[in-house]
Amino acid sequence: MPKFVVTPWEVSGEVDYDKLVKQFGTRPIGQRLINRIKKHAGTVHPMLRRNIFYSHRGLDRVLSEHEKGNPFVLYTGRGPSGDTHLGHLMPWIFTKHLQDVFGSKLIFQLTDDEKFMFSEKLTLKNVEKHAYENTLDFIALGFDPKKTEIFTDTEYIKSLYKIAIKVAKRTTFSTTKAVFGFNNSTNIGLIFFTCIQSAPAFIESERQGRPVPCLIPCAIDQDPHFRITRDAAPHLGYPKPALMHCKFFPSLGGSDKMSASDPRSSIYTTDTPKVARKKIMNAFTGGRETIKEQRKRGGNPQVCSVYQYLAYIFEPDDKALLDQCERCKHGELLCGEHKQYLAEKVEQFLVSHQEKREKAKDVIEEFMVRD
Amino acid sequence: MPKFVVTPWEVSGEVDYDKLVKQFGTRPIGQRLINRIKKHAGTVHPMLRRNIFYSHRGLDRVLSEHEKGNPFVLYTGRGPSGDTHLGHLMPWIFTKHLQDVFGSKLIFQLTDDEKFMFSEKLTLKNVEKHAYENTLDFIALGFDPKKTEIFTDTEYIKSLYKIAIKVAKRTTFSTTKAVFGFNNSTNIGLIFFTCIQSAPAFIESERQGRPVPCLIPCAIDQDPHFRITRDAAPHLGYPKPALMHCKFFPSLGGSDKMSASDPRSSIYTTDTPKVARKKIMNAFTGGRETIKEQRKRGGNPQVCSVYQYLAYIFEPDDKALLDQCERCKHGELLCGEHKQYLAEKVEQFLVSHQEKREKAKDVIEEFMVRD
Repeated sequence: MPKFVVTPWEVSGEVDYDKLVKQFGTRPIGQRLINRIKKHAGTVHPMLRRNIFYSHRGLDRVLSEHEKGNPFVLYTGRGPSGDTHLGHLMPWIFTKHLQDVFGSKLIFQLTDDEKFMFSEKLTLKNVEKHAYENTLDFIALGFDPKKTEIFTDTEYIKSLYKIAIKVAKRTTFSTTKAVFGFNNSTNIGLIFFTCIQSAPAFIESERQGRPVPCLIPCAIDQDPHFRITRDAAPHLGYPKPALMHCKFFPSLGGSDKMSASDPRSSIYTTDTPKVARKKIMNAFTGGRETIKEQRKRGGNPQVCSVYQYLAYIFEPDDKALLDQCERCKHGELLCGEHKQYLAEKVEQFLVSHQEKREKAKDVIEEFMVRD
Repeated sequence: MPKFVVTPWEVSGEVDYDKLVKQFGTRPIGQRLINRIKKHAGTVHPMLRRNIFYSHRGLDRVLSEHEKGNPFVLYTGRGPSGDTHLGHLMPWIFTKHLQDVFGSKLIFQLTDDEKFMFSEKLTLKNVEKHAYENTLDFIALGFDPKKTEIFTDTEYIKSLYKIAIKVAKRTTFSTTKAVFGFNNSTNIGLIFFTCIQSAPAFIESERQGRPVPCLIPCAIDQDPHFRITRDAAPHLGYPKPALMHCKFFPSLGGSDKMSASDPRSSIYTTDTPKVARKKIMNAFTGGRETIKEQRKRGGNPQVCSVYQYLAYIFEPDDKALLDQCERCKHGELLCGEHKQYLAEKVEQFLVSHQEKREKAKDVIEEFMVRD
């Protein structure tokens, strides 16, 4: 049985997503919930129908509130520890979809404090720079500046802190040991930090002085933080935030999560199309050792990073994706050709994204909130 | 051997102050240091010559810096968990003396976050109210508004937080276990809080972009926080703050620290002179069971709260104090008379203090800093 570890600071091993749902105590997003969202969206987003956003907490309730005329705020974020890669964009793309469908206000937290305290080598200046660069990528996805607030923790701490200390008062070290695996040598900033990540889930309730529902789309590794948030909520008189969890964006190297530490395994939003193409042409696939063998036995799309890239983001057309899958399995679509196909899509995306990213520099201040 | 416990959140048992110096690893303030301060002050403050401010860390160094033309900032504070009693005033009175003598800038921190997180029953509103009331008492002592900054942590957190997380990054849970006796059921806010108490020691260095010396006058129970501050300092490129520690103001009930939880054992700054007098008339003394016996055997000033009150604050005249001590020991000064004498002094102080306290309401905003 392959072992795997998923915490906000470590993802390793071959992740069994179904097991993770059981381990974390979340719920799978089933057809009934997908249909419920479809009623609002008119359509089903590829990340939902392909089971990429696959798990949730309290989604039913937040939808019911919305239907009763009590709209939810969306809250997601980013730990600014480095450049943005395509994996980071994935939950944001889905969040953009939710903002479009539900017309929601969106809060985007950049946890510069966390990344500074977690990393031995990162300075506050480093994380500030990363936060700026990450924000450009976020804005480039097309969020509505009238409905979107972005902040770094250190610049918005006055608004967060009073909420954070309410969560802290109700959270013991025991709990963080159990939830995050902390021990005696963990620094006390990281121990406290989860309260800062909790705060944005309650900030709209605090501002409006009434329980405002909140929905948090995020990768499944962030769930432990929000377990603490949800446990604290009733003690504080806030509603428990709902969650929608996604799987990790695949690595070009064939492991489960795109790794920021191995630049060859990830495509960064600032990679030139040429560099991106080269990374794709070197990607791990489900192909055979020889062309002859592949023609005969077919490839394996399930383990193929090229296929996964297309399924997660770059081939929204189900029919086209299925066709590629079938042709691969029957030895008709070879890896070289499939890589070319993906590279073209990624190149197009990067050219367009980098243009929008440049434009984001002019409007970033419309999004930022500071104390 | 009497057992005692001294931490920032608990003082119990009969405190052995000399043992505490060894236990904490601080140094006694000897005659050499007193003389060194006298060179600046022209005089020796009663709290110094009576060994009430009796222990220090790094005082030599901060005086040397001052003498080289690199003046120190003073930093002290208050945990706003309730009304101000005379014991709280004691270190502030000495701090005022230091500000007068050295012309120092002074930072006064109100740890509303700490007191909220420490107490099961206190709300943020409660501590906010206490912070306001405590501030009036502080200002009433006559600090210079041009040289004095007062803040509550929650209102000044943006200025504190970036420094606090630098301290946090260098402080493990192990350290806080060892220093404060924390355990698994301690809430994560209290675990983190010591970093917030560290921050003001470095804030002037941060602002000026150079190492600014800092001197912290405080009761000895606060020393554990600043051990962490001093340990972190070199890693952060800040100078270690110096400390001057005082003993605890005596309780009218005869135990070592004035207790905020038993209102009869403390005189509050807002007590009417009549109430204060009544508390003093009921105070624990070093007297004998009968007047006859006392006339014969004399009283014991060393255990007498009335004598201690005079020695700590209300009888700055050494000759007068010694005279009272001798007359008591020889059965010439009876407790009733001595209580009357103290009551008069305290009444006078309260009338004058309460007047200044009222006036402080008009100028409080000149002192407060906020983000």
